[in-house]
Amino acid sequence: MLQIRPEDIERKSFEIITSQMDKGRLEFYTEDELLVVKRTIHTTADFDYQNNVIFQNNALDNLKDCIRSGAMIFTDTNMALSGINKRILTSKFGIEPLCLIAEERTIALAKKNSTTRASAAIDLAYQIHEEKLLSDGQKLPIIFAVGNAPTALIRIHELLDKYKPDFIIAAPVGFVNVIEAKNLIKQSNIPSIICDGNKGGSNVCAAIINAALLQLA
Amino acid sequence: MLQIRPEDIERKSFEIITSQMDKGRLEFYTEDELLVVKRTIHTTADFDYQNNVIFQNNALDNLKDCIRSGAMIFTDTNMALSGINKRILTSKFGIEPLCLIAEERTIALAKKNSTTRASAAIDLAYQIHEEKLLSDGQKLPIIFAVGNAPTALIRIHELLDKYKPDFIIAAPVGFVNVIEAKNLIKQSNIPSIICDGNKGGSNVCAAIINAALLQLA
Repeated sequence: MLQIRPEDIERKSFEIITSQMDKGRLEFYTEDELLVVKRTIHTTADFDYQNNVIFQNNALDNLKDCIRSGAMIFTDTNMALSGINKRILTSKFGIEPLCLIAEERTIALAKKNSTTRASAAIDLAYQIHEEKLLSDGQKLPIIFAVGNAPTALIRIHELLDKYKPDFIIAAPVGFVNVIEAKNLIKQSNIPSIICDGNKGGSNVCAAIINAALLQLA
Repeated sequence: MLQIRPEDIERKSFEIITSQMDKGRLEFYTEDELLVVKRTIHTTADFDYQNNVIFQNNALDNLKDCIRSGAMIFTDTNMALSGINKRILTSKFGIEPLCLIAEERTIALAKKNSTTRASAAIDLAYQIHEEKLLSDGQKLPIIFAVGNAPTALIRIHELLDKYKPDFIIAAPVGFVNVIEAKNLIKQSNIPSIICDGNKGGSNVCAAIINAALLQLA
């Protein structure tokens, strides 16, 4: 067993990840983008992410600006919510991320519109965003962090004429409608970090946010 | 976009997973084990899991027996905890899984013993298990579900002379001490589901428990 102090484990892990990545991919990304890509590999031990992660429309700068501006962050699962580094996000930026999937208003809306809860949670997120604007005049940026539900991305796309989010993490995992839903986000050109293909997940979604947060800490 | 009812997405996903798995691996596992393996792939879109998941010492039957007996379940992260299907686990079996990583007693113990919180949380779990036995005479099975911290597995191994858990999910992900820590669990021959190699994660750990729960639902 490698004798190593806990605080050195992460540094050592990132060294190993770097040594096992393709040279071409190490050169493809900017230095800050690489930290995001490496953190997705750190979270999965899956080197496919070096080829999968797409930064669209100056994504990382936009994501950091949103966080600095106190963005509202909505995740599609409680698992992604629980993986986000609240020590930085909440303590430093005063942001309390939200997951609306189990809210009564979401459940009622999903039933009314015969849609998924993940889809209804997008509608509710925009509603909460508007309520905040009406109550205190603050128009905060809005970030959707989607690691599970393609229907969340599909709903974001359907509502684009009316509402445009400031940032999207598009990282659902799976085999049905996942690639198609991510393609809708690519076509939108909204600043986004997209895990191309079938891969992604709540853990990957949280890892992407955390990588950005660590660059702001 | 594939027009498909939400309730059919999972069935369709599992059909696609089955069609893309290696024939040899489909034949290698029992029918119930296959449902666990397929759920890890469903959670990650990573087909390496068809080669990684080890069922040790009649694992799946033992895991189901533990759950039926109302086992205490301790996860190493809040993310794994949040991914577990409480609808079945809590409603049907009355089990409230616990994550002790952020407990004050864990933090104090980690400080006192100069160890990681994940390691200290194992000590605290055994302590809570004993307190329950003393308070109501119930000796419940104890399950550790580890998706992140190799030090949790190392601590389980260190304490084996004194305490023996009834079941272990050994699925930490990463590059430092992860393989070595999993090997300790393999050598113990305790009933376990192990994700061999570097891969695993909180999501995979929760998926394994959920796959067993769905077989009991």
